[in-house]
Amino acid sequence: MKFLKTLFSALFLVSSLQAQNKDSIMVRRIYDEALASGHTYKNLEYLCKKIGPRLSGSVNAQKSVEWTKKLMEEYGFDRVYLQELMVPVWERGVKETAWIIEGRTKIPVPIAALGGSIASPVSGITAQIIEVQNFDQLKALGEQLVKGKIVFFNRPFDPRHFDTFKAYGAAVDQRSNGAVEAAKLGAVGVIVRSMSTVIDDFPHTGGMRYQDGVTKIPAAAISTKAAELLSRELKLRKLPAIQFYFKQNCRTLPDAVSYNVIGEIRGSEDPEAIITVGGHLDSWDLAEGAHDDGAGVMQSVEVLRIFRSLNIRPKHTIRAVMFMNEENGLRGGLKYAEIAKQNNEKHIAALESDEGGFTPRGFTIENVAGLAHISKWIPLFKPYKAADIEGGGSGADIGPLRIFPNTVLMAFNPDSQRYFDIHHSSNDVFENVNKRELELGAAAMTSMVYLIDQYGAR
Amino acid sequence: MKFLKTLFSALFLVSSLQAQNKDSIMVRRIYDEALASGHTYKNLEYLCKKIGPRLSGSVNAQKSVEWTKKLMEEYGFDRVYLQELMVPVWERGVKETAWIIEGRTKIPVPIAALGGSIASPVSGITAQIIEVQNFDQLKALGEQLVKGKIVFFNRPFDPRHFDTFKAYGAAVDQRSNGAVEAAKLGAVGVIVRSMSTVIDDFPHTGGMRYQDGVTKIPAAAISTKAAELLSRELKLRKLPAIQFYFKQNCRTLPDAVSYNVIGEIRGSEDPEAIITVGGHLDSWDLAEGAHDDGAGVMQSVEVLRIFRSLNIRPKHTIRAVMFMNEENGLRGGLKYAEIAKQNNEKHIAALESDEGGFTPRGFTIENVAGLAHISKWIPLFKPYKAADIEGGGSGADIGPLRIFPNTVLMAFNPDSQRYFDIHHSSNDVFENVNKRELELGAAAMTSMVYLIDQYGAR
Repeated sequence: MKFLKTLFSALFLVSSLQAQNKDSIMVRRIYDEALASGHTYKNLEYLCKKIGPRLSGSVNAQKSVEWTKKLMEEYGFDRVYLQELMVPVWERGVKETAWIIEGRTKIPVPIAALGGSIASPVSGITAQIIEVQNFDQLKALGEQLVKGKIVFFNRPFDPRHFDTFKAYGAAVDQRSNGAVEAAKLGAVGVIVRSMSTVIDDFPHTGGMRYQDGVTKIPAAAISTKAAELLSRELKLRKLPAIQFYFKQNCRTLPDAVSYNVIGEIRGSEDPEAIITVGGHLDSWDLAEGAHDDGAGVMQSVEVLRIFRSLNIRPKHTIRAVMFMNEENGLRGGLKYAEIAKQNNEKHIAALESDEGGFTPRGFTIENVAGLAHISKWIPLFKPYKAADIEGGGSGADIGPLRIFPNTVLMAFNPDSQRYFDIHHSSNDVFENVNKRELELGAAAMTSMVYLIDQYGAR
Repeated sequence: MKFLKTLFSALFLVSSLQAQNKDSIMVRRIYDEALASGHTYKNLEYLCKKIGPRLSGSVNAQKSVEWTKKLMEEYGFDRVYLQELMVPVWERGVKETAWIIEGRTKIPVPIAALGGSIASPVSGITAQIIEVQNFDQLKALGEQLVKGKIVFFNRPFDPRHFDTFKAYGAAVDQRSNGAVEAAKLGAVGVIVRSMSTVIDDFPHTGGMRYQDGVTKIPAAAISTKAAELLSRELKLRKLPAIQFYFKQNCRTLPDAVSYNVIGEIRGSEDPEAIITVGGHLDSWDLAEGAHDDGAGVMQSVEVLRIFRSLNIRPKHTIRAVMFMNEENGLRGGLKYAEIAKQNNEKHIAALESDEGGFTPRGFTIENVAGLAHISKWIPLFKPYKAADIEGGGSGADIGPLRIFPNTVLMAFNPDSQRYFDIHHSSNDVFENVNKRELELGAAAMTSMVYLIDQYGAR
């Protein structure tokens, strides 16, 4: 009996080693294809340079829907289609103007309206400006000190966070909720230090929200360099000496029709079981959305292209999904899950790439059973240094798939160090994407999808 | 007995866990200091922008010696001193000129003389040009076809190598030995495709050598984009139709005096035992040597500064060494080992940072006993994703310390993907260094030196 046990163990070990060897050869082929014959970089160049910024509801967003659909049709995927949905429409209008006013001196400073903000009055707002680091400080000042003023939220990223997403997470409440909290105390406007890891002249926009019953006031991001300047001036001079002026004419229009774009390779054994890989097609309006999230969508298309190019016939259906409206509404992600539910679809796993096209580190997995299963493949990712497979969040667009408790949701994790230098600013352009880093991401994602298709996700 | 064994094991485990906990707190403090109060970035900015290119024997190289000495003196390290040595002196002279000549058409192309090359004749060289991929192809052509011609070495980097240093290693013989191999068959000049991961307009220089008894012929690197163009033209037209012209007036001058720059914090328990951390101060002349290797030297200074700032009194002597002349002679590394030998110094370990200031991946260790010992600290580096501790090479400058078989030699390994985009080209400038990536390298290096000081290197 003991002999048999040992024999079985040995046989199991041999077959498992053979599988790993076969898999490591396939992973190597996937990387070779992505690095030596990849399309990700040239496709991203097209999306960034021929189309450009793609805010939901914009002409460019529609162009990007049409172009990615056409691209996937040309690749000959089994099925390419659109999912119709309604998206919010917000427009920046003409470039914003802002000054720090000290007596007769006006110092121009770079700002950008936050996405979703209302306009200022046509002639702009001029008011005394007061600096706070957080909502507690704001509340401590109270209505008497805040009323009629512009509130300047100036809490920087904490550089001690290794993962810059943690620094972002610890600062972003100022941008998201600053206008509501300031308006509750009677403020007339909000200026928020840009969510950024660097000190420079470029404001970073991003989503903000209003709250029913609270007056809407205009909100804008100020560049980190100008935030430092403003803060210094406020410390140097007596408070009433400093005023701030800003003008923006952004506006919200009625919701418009837009689409998720989906490409599929049908499964050869169990086509009803689906593996989703995706990113979001919309971007903020200040730049080309190269890292956020042109990289993710072009990598997702590349996953399917590599399957085709290497003649890999997946057992399950592999879907590349270009979600619409991640930045200011998440309507695409919600629609995708809603339709999946309606159609009673079976989703094995979903993988999102929405942390930039940087050098791969690994994957985070929401589901405990998924993490245990997928961790077995760490040795396959080790040679490519994409082997940090850890518990953690997945992605905003695939989040609504949590309605399916057995679906394993995961994120592709590139290195986070450079992301918030450029995120939501005019520097998120194609030139700031490195070809090899982008391609390695596509290779890691393809390998992960391949392994899930072979062995399941949990 | 078994009980005692278990007890001892348990006690050992507890004390080992306590040590790891104490160490993880210290590593956290080191990272906090480097990320929130670091000097690496501003020091590198000074070296790049106020001094600039620092080829051995140049005025700037001397300035960089004086400035780094002064910097370390101002930090109040226990001892700051110079090691005198002789370095080769090579000058590029005026900017090179080159054309592809097709009949009456001259297409200008960007080239850069290779370091150490002789000049062309004053009026330049015009000759038929023939393309080869490697020395075998060259030899197969033979003297009859090669004589009187310019040889164009055009084997690109193989993009399938994950580690770009492997791609570099597999291509660099063309640059190092191309002139010798071509001259043996009577060629009059050599044009080498730039050692680069990208296709662009910037030639990458680098070292080359001549051989006694073989005629010296001028050698230059051509940009990858121009190499592709030249190769296309050669394929399109009959061979005799294409000629190439290039002109360069570089020259080698007599050896000059230069220096390694050394800063020390003396050990409190065993000051005669030394841990070296370093990089090279010299750089190629085309740019600022920001990644190669301004990053490494400024990180090495930062290691000692962080020790001081955190009031860590090392047991052993910690030395930051700015080696001179890595790029075209290695005289600094050789001198450092020579003096160590003369003085019968005891070297515990040496760590070099000369792979750029990119996001950390880990360390490679030459010594097997060192690798086994240091691998125990992987958990301490995991939170900072600098935990790839593997066997492998160390660094050119510390290589001569191999005369001490017990010294553990190791390299700091940043991510390699972007290094050869800019290496030895005019793009190796401060603007291409990311602050956080650079600082994380300094933190990883400081942590490693701290742990070696605490627990030895093997």
